[in-house]
Amino acid sequence: MPHIDLPSEAPGILGLLIKYPATAKPLTELAQVLLRGSSPLSPGEREIIAAYVSKLNGCKFCAGSHGAAAKHLLKDSPLAEVIDDPLKSERITPKLKALLSIAESVQKGGRSVTEDQAAQARKQGATAEEIHIVVLIAAAFCMFNRYVDGLATVIPPDSDYPPMGQVMAEQGYVRQRNAPKAK
Amino acid sequence: MPHIDLPSEAPGILGLLIKYPATAKPLTELAQVLLRGSSPLSPGEREIIAAYVSKLNGCKFCAGSHGAAAKHLLKDSPLAEVIDDPLKSERITPKLKALLSIAESVQKGGRSVTEDQAAQARKQGATAEEIHIVVLIAAAFCMFNRYVDGLATVIPPDSDYPPMGQVMAEQGYVRQRNAPKAK
Repeated sequence: MPHIDLPSEAPGILGLLIKYPATAKPLTELAQVLLRGSSPLSPGEREIIAAYVSKLNGCKFCAGSHGAAAKHLLKDSPLAEVIDDPLKSERITPKLKALLSIAESVQKGGRSVTEDQAAQARKQGATAEEIHIVVLIAAAFCMFNRYVDGLATVIPPDSDYPPMGQVMAEQGYVRQRNAPKAK
Repeated sequence: MPHIDLPSEAPGILGLLIKYPATAKPLTELAQVLLRGSSPLSPGEREIIAAYVSKLNGCKFCAGSHGAAAKHLLKDSPLAEVIDDPLKSERITPKLKALLSIAESVQKGGRSVTEDQAAQARKQGATAEEIHIVVLIAAAFCMFNRYVDGLATVIPPDSDYPPMGQVMAEQGYVRQRNAPKAK
């Protein structure tokens, strides 16, 4: 049961966004610019990072929903197979692997990221812009995950994630709350 | 040295906000609504929470700057004396102590917050709105701290924090980057 009163029909972060619109505005705009804004990394690659950090933080709602969004965005790509355990996969590019290793360190704490990791990412072709967005996506999901679980929001059944991921993939984050529900 | 090229005159998060305006917009708006927006907790109390979580995360820049902002905002209050170690102070109210205990758990991870902690905060008079904002401030600083340190931004000398805190206290976050520097 959530630690505060929330709309019972809206699991995870959704009830928080409905109940607290003043904070919902910058939070959804941040998710939109990080995961759908202009970037050399595709939305699907960025959703993999979001889902991976959420999994490391033990946040079922964010790992389930962003994992489903990644699967929807990457359905025609070999990357779709790496979502559940990306660092162990051989299908992932060396650049994305180096960036995920940075995300993994950010999840532990900002000072865990080493200059060696940044150098390795650069060696694999990552630009400053890519290193920046990966660090900020990983950091932001350390926030979203704590927001969702720190208030003990409701975790929906696993079957809810694929339609939720489809809406996130197709409509993004800023208009999502007013959008029609996926079938 | 930062892991990516940043404006050398702007330490901590400031260089990141200048260099990456697309993400700076929702980030500064989030800081503004969390720390200066309408809330039953005063800006000074909220800056104490921000500084405390930053200290727990080992983020010198955020702990120094938000601690200085708290000191400026609370200069006429007995709370000014609790900023450096708020949970050990006897000057803090039982309600703020219960809320800081929740913030401390959020820093460890969202699922660390217990129903007992929420019940204790409610018993001391905390409303749902207060519990919500404290969880989100603590979660947000787990992001800001990781953003600042994950990219190894420059840490300024300690003497820079009091004027920085004064600007943050007096001008907030949204217009801060265009505001004149404190003397």
